Formats: sequence, C-alpha cells, structure tokens
Amino acid sequence: MKKIEHIGIAVKDIEASNDLFAALFGTKHYKTEAVESEGVITSFFEMGPNKIELLQATTADSPIAKFIERKGEGIHHIAFAVGDIEKEIERLKGEGFKMIHEKPKRGADNKLIAFLHPKSTNGVLIELCQDIKE
Amino acid sequence: MKKIEHIGIAVKDIEASNDLFAALFGTKHYKTEAVESEGVITSFFEMGPNKIELLQATTADSPIAKFIERKGEGIHHIAFAVGDIEKEIERLKGEGFKMIHEKPKRGADNKLIAFLHPKSTNGVLIELCQDIKE
Repeated sequence: MKKIEHIGIAVKDIEASNDLFAALFGTKHYKTEAVESEGVITSFFEMGPNKIELLQATTADSPIAKFIERKGEGIHHIAFAVGDIEKEIERLKGEGFKMIHEKPKRGADNKLIAFLHPKSTNGVLIELCQDIKE
Repeated sequence: MKKIEHIGIAVKDIEASNDLFAALFGTKHYKTEAVESEGVITSFFEMGPNKIELLQATTADSPIAKFIERKGEGIHHIAFAVGDIEKEIERLKGEGFKMIHEKPKRGADNKLIAFLHPKSTNGVLIELCQDIKE
C-alpha cells in the first residue's frame, strides 16, 4: 500500500457539506460524480497527495443511508492506493483478511476498487484502489 | 492544509492491533508513544506521505475509552498537516468552526496539535498538527 488515496465521509446533504468542507479546507471540491451501483453521489476535494470524498445516499437502501442511520454522519471509510489490486487482494486473503469484494470492481474517480470486511480490520472499513490506465 | 498527516484508529488492545495492521499494511509500526495527558498509548505506521496512528486507552476516563464505549473500535479522527497552526486556528474560527483547543497543545509524534469540535464538522473529529522545529 502506497498512501492514503482518500477518506470517505458520509453526509446527509452533499451541497451543504461541499460548502462546509470548502470553508474548512480553504479550497472547493473539484468534481462531483454519481455511482449508481452504490446509490451514492460523491464529491472530491484535493489535499496535496490525498483526497477527501463526500458521499450522500441517493436511495434508501444505499450503504451510506444505512451507515448514517446506524452511526450518524462522519468518517465512513479509508481508501489506500495500491499498485496491483488483484495481487493485493490475494496477499490480504493469504493473511486471513475477509474481502467484501474478492474481485475488483469499478468505483468512482476512474478506479478499480475492493473493500475489506470491517469485522477483520478492527471495525475500520478499508477500500483498496488502483488507477485505471486507459 | 497540506495533506492528511495521519488517521487515528481507536483500538482495545494495541498489541493485537499492531500485529493486525502490520499484516494489513505489510509493514510494522515504527514507534510507540504514551500521551499521559490524554490517557492513551499510541503506535505509528508509515505509509508514503501519510501515517496511521493506533490509540489504546490507558485510563477509564480517556477520550478513547469513551469513544469505544459509544461507537466501538474504529476510525477516531483525521489529522491534517498545517504550516502555521495558530494562523489556521484563527482562520477556522473566522469561518465559524468551533475549536476544542483554541490554543495549540503538545501532542504525540513531536507535534503541536489542536482539535476542532465534531459538531461543527459533520460529525468528523479533526485534528490540526504542525511539526515542532527544535
């Protein structure tokens, strides 16, 4: 794992939160993207080598809607940048970690992604992500 | 704000978690440090430009003990690196953010730190930190 690629923050109202985090970071979000398969709309802020992703649910059964119901707004996941996501999934399975996605899938921001199950990582929801080279 | 300096993760048993996160990251923690004023013992992992800090409570009234009681183990805070922490605190107060620490205090890892109140930041506990130059 090479760095923290981004931190995902679950919010109820992405427009209000875009303004709030712009005031916090001193810089506006640079893009907005819907991920229909996850029932979310996302926005991204850049901070040096890292990003912050805000996530708002667009459907009642979105993982983000369920997270906010259970825990309230706040940090939802950490994403780590990896060079070869398939190799990293195999390595982590070999170490005994449980994957939510055993095969990478397409995520926001032009990435291949896979989540680990938080039960095997001290309650922390962890995403691996690899840039898609096109 | 320049980058994510570290992510703080609240754990119940820092020795077991040191092993777990070493297997996850493929690298061991590089130091352990007690912060008596906060009632915590911490360990640090390096990942490129970022760090991961594990925090275990050493007293029953430690903020980490209370956090785990309320929310369980998991991500506790995000720390952002800033160049001039006093100037940043003034800027954030001017934007309407509420500080837990209006003056920087000494934290782990040779840093001046100050926390923002999560009620003003969408439920996210945010730390500012500045390297101490000695």
